Amino acid sequence: MTLQFWFEFGSTYSYPAAMRLEADAVRAGVAVEWKAFLLGPIFRDQGWDDSPFNLYPAKGRYMWRDLERICAARAIPYRRPTVFPRNGLLAARVVAGHPGAPWLPDFTRAVYSANFRDDRDIADPEVVATCAEAAGQRADAVLARAALPATKAALRAATEEAASLGIFGAPSFRVGGELFWGDDRLDDALRWATSGPS
Amino acid sequence: MTLQFWFEFGSTYSYPAAMRLEADAVRAGVAVEWKAFLLGPIFRDQGWDDSPFNLYPAKGRYMWRDLERICAARAIPYRRPTVFPRNGLLAARVVAGHPGAPWLPDFTRAVYSANFRDDRDIADPEVVATCAEAAGQRADAVLARAALPATKAALRAATEEAASLGIFGAPSFRVGGELFWGDDRLDDALRWATSGPS
Repeated sequence: MTLQFWFEFGSTYSYPAAMRLEADAVRAGVAVEWKAFLLGPIFRDQGWDDSPFNLYPAKGRYMWRDLERICAARAIPYRRPTVFPRNGLLAARVVAGHPGAPWLPDFTRAVYSANFRDDRDIADPEVVATCAEAAGQRADAVLARAALPATKAALRAATEEAASLGIFGAPSFRVGGELFWGDDRLDDALRWATSGPS
Repeated sequence: MTLQFWFEFGSTYSYPAAMRLEADAVRAGVAVEWKAFLLGPIFRDQGWDDSPFNLYPAKGRYMWRDLERICAARAIPYRRPTVFPRNGLLAARVVAGHPGAPWLPDFTRAVYSANFRDDRDIADPEVVATCAEAAGQRADAVLARAALPATKAALRAATEEAASLGIFGAPSFRVGGELFWGDDRLDDALRWATSGPS
């Protein structure tokens, strides 16, 4: 069974999920479909013009400490970004422009590391170019494809698909019609993919 | 090290947490302090006049399916309550009126079962009385104590303490200054209590 990984490049808890997903899925024998989408339009539909972690300070304070704790426990390098949330539009268009490409996991991890390890601006085309190169791609070709109207439409469609699937946050995992929300539910999602209801 | 279990009787994810907490904590060798509080005032401070699961329908739909799935996986009896959230004020006052009483875990599980297994109105003094009796107590004494001004003040103080600790949802677990939010983080909280940062 395939697991869909729905992620947003600005999303904090998507970072530790993205860093472990490929290895965990290989171990479980589960194929992964990497689906970038934008949380902005989904948050706006809920009446939020910013991340709920900014709108609700107690929740935000908890999240930053929790993320730090999770990364420390799993030995994932982490530095709190000086800007949050960062704009992941360009990076998400790269993913939307190359559905199923075998280098998407490498690219995705590189972008998350740029944001949450290196505190770099992932909206900057030069940063995205570096991430494409780290994934073994020619940056100019990748960025050119990200700028195509068809690619922009594909990302809009992915975000609409996410909303229609009932996705309201990231990371989300979808397995055979079931939705699991949050990095802490990845194990459950993989278990569902291999065993179904247990 | 002691683990503080902060719960609200109306809270859905507090149900599976309450049902497993005592057994898991005994197994881990961790003492538990059972701390009831009210989410209503905390939600109001965030601008919400209802549960976020009602205010944000996508989140609510996900939660109900997720709760059903969690209870099924752990063989916890579950029926979706016809009223949500139910008013847990009286039951929370019972807890606040008897801090540290050895029958609180039994009482707490009885109230959660009344709400999420039997679909009963936990604001009804007769239902709370039945739960007190199930925990081996004399219902009239328990209810009389719940009605004392000092007990009401103790619950208000517990809710204010929760807010001052940065608690914004339930269940929350506090261990040595660290906060863990959500049923799915109970294992992490118990691990922290036994091993600290790992």
